[in-house]
Amino acid sequence: MKITDKDITMIATDKIEKKNKLIADWDALLRTFVRPENEKAKATLIKYMEQILFELQDFLKAHVGITEEISLPELCLHFTDTKISKDPEKKLTTAINDIVKNLAPYAVNIASPYFIGHMTSAIPFFMVHLKTIVTALNQNVNKLETSKVASIVEKQVLAKIHRLIYNNSDSFYNTHVQNPYTTLGAFVEGGTSANFTALWVARNLCFAAKDGFKGVEAEGLAAAYAAYNINRSVILVSRRGHFSLKKAAGFLGIGNQNIIAVDVDNKQQINFTKLQEQIKKYTKDNHTKILAVVGIAGTTETGTVDPLKKIAGICKENNIYFHVDAAWGGPTLMSEKYKYLLDGIELADSVTIDGHKQFYMPIGCGMVYFKDPDSMEAVAYHSNYVNRPGSVDLGIKSIAGSREANSLVLDSSLKIMGTKGYALLIDHGIETAALFANEIKNRPCFELITPPKLNILTYRICPDHYKNQLRQADPTEKWQITKRLNAINRTVQRIQREAGFSFVSRTRLIPDIESKIELVVLRSVIMNPMTDLDILKEILDEQEKIYHDRFSEIDNNIF
Amino acid sequence: MKITDKDITMIATDKIEKKNKLIADWDALLRTFVRPENEKAKATLIKYMEQILFELQDFLKAHVGITEEISLPELCLHFTDTKISKDPEKKLTTAINDIVKNLAPYAVNIASPYFIGHMTSAIPFFMVHLKTIVTALNQNVNKLETSKVASIVEKQVLAKIHRLIYNNSDSFYNTHVQNPYTTLGAFVEGGTSANFTALWVARNLCFAAKDGFKGVEAEGLAAAYAAYNINRSVILVSRRGHFSLKKAAGFLGIGNQNIIAVDVDNKQQINFTKLQEQIKKYTKDNHTKILAVVGIAGTTETGTVDPLKKIAGICKENNIYFHVDAAWGGPTLMSEKYKYLLDGIELADSVTIDGHKQFYMPIGCGMVYFKDPDSMEAVAYHSNYVNRPGSVDLGIKSIAGSREANSLVLDSSLKIMGTKGYALLIDHGIETAALFANEIKNRPCFELITPPKLNILTYRICPDHYKNQLRQADPTEKWQITKRLNAINRTVQRIQREAGFSFVSRTRLIPDIESKIELVVLRSVIMNPMTDLDILKEILDEQEKIYHDRFSEIDNNIF
Repeated sequence: MKITDKDITMIATDKIEKKNKLIADWDALLRTFVRPENEKAKATLIKYMEQILFELQDFLKAHVGITEEISLPELCLHFTDTKISKDPEKKLTTAINDIVKNLAPYAVNIASPYFIGHMTSAIPFFMVHLKTIVTALNQNVNKLETSKVASIVEKQVLAKIHRLIYNNSDSFYNTHVQNPYTTLGAFVEGGTSANFTALWVARNLCFAAKDGFKGVEAEGLAAAYAAYNINRSVILVSRRGHFSLKKAAGFLGIGNQNIIAVDVDNKQQINFTKLQEQIKKYTKDNHTKILAVVGIAGTTETGTVDPLKKIAGICKENNIYFHVDAAWGGPTLMSEKYKYLLDGIELADSVTIDGHKQFYMPIGCGMVYFKDPDSMEAVAYHSNYVNRPGSVDLGIKSIAGSREANSLVLDSSLKIMGTKGYALLIDHGIETAALFANEIKNRPCFELITPPKLNILTYRICPDHYKNQLRQADPTEKWQITKRLNAINRTVQRIQREAGFSFVSRTRLIPDIESKIELVVLRSVIMNPMTDLDILKEILDEQEKIYHDRFSEIDNNIF
Repeated sequence: MKITDKDITMIATDKIEKKNKLIADWDALLRTFVRPENEKAKATLIKYMEQILFELQDFLKAHVGITEEISLPELCLHFTDTKISKDPEKKLTTAINDIVKNLAPYAVNIASPYFIGHMTSAIPFFMVHLKTIVTALNQNVNKLETSKVASIVEKQVLAKIHRLIYNNSDSFYNTHVQNPYTTLGAFVEGGTSANFTALWVARNLCFAAKDGFKGVEAEGLAAAYAAYNINRSVILVSRRGHFSLKKAAGFLGIGNQNIIAVDVDNKQQINFTKLQEQIKKYTKDNHTKILAVVGIAGTTETGTVDPLKKIAGICKENNIYFHVDAAWGGPTLMSEKYKYLLDGIELADSVTIDGHKQFYMPIGCGMVYFKDPDSMEAVAYHSNYVNRPGSVDLGIKSIAGSREANSLVLDSSLKIMGTKGYALLIDHGIETAALFANEIKNRPCFELITPPKLNILTYRICPDHYKNQLRQADPTEKWQITKRLNAINRTVQRIQREAGFSFVSRTRLIPDIESKIELVVLRSVIMNPMTDLDILKEILDEQEKIYHDRFSEIDNNIF
């Protein structure tokens, strides 16, 4: 194992700390609650905090890399200390210095415009300021007694985003914005918790109390099935559905195999005819209940938006709960130009939107919204010491108990950005993705697999001679060539990631439904406003270079 | 409605912003990602950030009150704007100024040493620094590709706390600390999610796959009951169990009425004889399965610790999953002096501990630990684009998908504090609560209801003449007097809270099991190191004064 400069710093710091042994005593303790131990320490801390708060992008560029200088197993060797020391090991300044000097270099600079592999990207520097204040206030919105105004702000923000989705009347929002008895939505940890919450509500509405049955929440699923004389319930979603839906079905006792994956068409949207068939099949079956249909507004892998209006229609016809997972695509509603892409979302019974995705908030903030302000009564809990009925205690209707006041971040951010500010980001992502798709199509070395509707696309390295081969190949040959291309794409993606300059993710897709051949594809998510076509070209150049260095000679021998 | 100075500031600021209309354009947008618009703005921000980061307690004292100057309905009137503005409404400096000047005064200063009503208290100032860095790095520990070192640090911290609980051998921890195939625990949003996760694991282990059955996670609860030939499963916990357990049972499809509340003894611990009876009853019933027994290490209402060792014994005998909810009490393990109070916790199959409670981290951080490093396989999920099996992707085994790197905060905090530093806090809480209990006992106006074992106690206003009456009363009279005392305690608690100087919470308890009479009691949680006996005396003085001003004259007429 190679010892780097950074490792030496790590070891050296440890030694110094050991010499000047730190002692935990009452005075020191009270100081840690109050302020830094001395002016020198304060000066060091200020230096870092100024960098973090006012030069965020430069700070990240300087200290964090998308790098793999040290391999994972090597890095792990540095983190095998499993004992908490009795005495303090480090002063705050040393601890922060350690994070910056010894941890950050091995973190991932997701804020780099060259990091286009995931739905996590640069955040505006002001988000760090806002989160810092939220942390300092440390309100707990579980109960009004530990939050007060924060709970009220949360209700207001929920109303704003509800309006963005459902656009109800002024009188509707005046009635509900601060109504302690109704709930327009909830802040949660992320999209997964949001989907959990929506399906929890759907399940409880589906198996509500009736004569001789107290409801599924009280009696459980087995009793619910007995009361409703069924033996199975299912949730329908396209094959592109996020895996949190399976997790939710598992968690909720429905069983994750009862998430029915409906085939997609060649545009990666749910195949509506297949959906109709499935709905017909299950509604005919007296012993199966369709709990919900989930439409997706921005699939994780391809950014596809399902035909929401049509799905809403068929759900209404058949009296089925309709949830939309807009964790990714939701904020598109702020773009005057592209909001039409989400037409029909206003017909959903519930909608998932992530704060830490296209609202550009820090990880982790998700939200879930309900068309009917009474829906969440289906999951309300009350306790003696908190959460008395009719109070504004937000813990009554949410998975979480204690919960931070993330709404203050979103509330301020909406005011600082305006919908127009967010629209600039959304439009930039969609339009840059379109340019990127064109660039890919024009390069002989690549093949565009799923063109972007929003700001996500997939493609692969597939040089022209491969394309020619594929055109002439019979099914067996096609499968052979694909295997080879899959290996190439896997390798190029890995080498590029390890080089630490850019990051594009990879996944597996069956773009041609008839062929059933699974391709390894490269996936890019364009959300960083600093990612422009020039940067994207550089990323493609690098991939081409890796391909040529590593594979083209072998390929030339094959062809 | 009375207009305060603060309201005027609010209105004035709005007017100024409207005059100099803010415009969302691409240049402004890029700047919001990069740095403040000008030096003057930066100077203002620095002023606030210095106050927040280096004078946290003073900042909170100056700007935040435990106050009710404006009543909730009045306050709500200020937060009824349900439209997101198109153009930016505020600059960052104005937005932050707004939070400090117009929101913070109506937030709750939970950091005040006079705020002893809930499990949310002052945090060391360095927590804000650490959280700020975590926010700036914005790592997403769902997947290694967006976190890397943060995922590795998380595994190391999990091993440290696991060791604190289970104290296994060096070789055990060396094997598992960085093992991608095993999991010692998980960071979650809070104690509720931790309890959810533990019971999720318990449920899936209980209804594991077997011949012809793929397991409850895949097939659901109704199929599981059919496969195991039962029609009900139950979870046993004392009446003092946290309501998140009911929520979990509801969520998991078990049904919240299947949380069986076992009676407590007069010490508020689970009545062990009753527990034995219940276990016997349900094990005899062939159609009911006991999913888990939950022991509590620090009940929310009274801080009671159940006899964990005895519960572990009976669970082992009967092969029942044993979970300990140590959300509150867990960190007591760091105190050499008091860790014996949690004897037997090391026998639990899983343990819930909150980071944002007695680890003094910002809201929301919970954790769950498993004795068996393979337990969490029962809830593992994998997806194509992330979370490949055998990877260090932490999203595989947790409720949440995207999740912030809270482990970096705890990791640094453990180093800054050492177990001794934390022990000082824990010991202070326990010992100050004991002194407080004595003080209450010595005051004729009060009655100690549940003496503290840890740092939580309950008491009530019950002047001597009431005590005398109660001693001589028959059951009907007792009930009448209690009703009167309940009203008094409710009122005094409310008036004190509204006065905005101190905060003690209230709850309802049946301390004398035989009598079945429910008392309204005052509850205090001593965790702030700045809360000392003098402050507690002041709080009692204030309560006495409120009582005398409001009730003693009427009382004198009664007696």
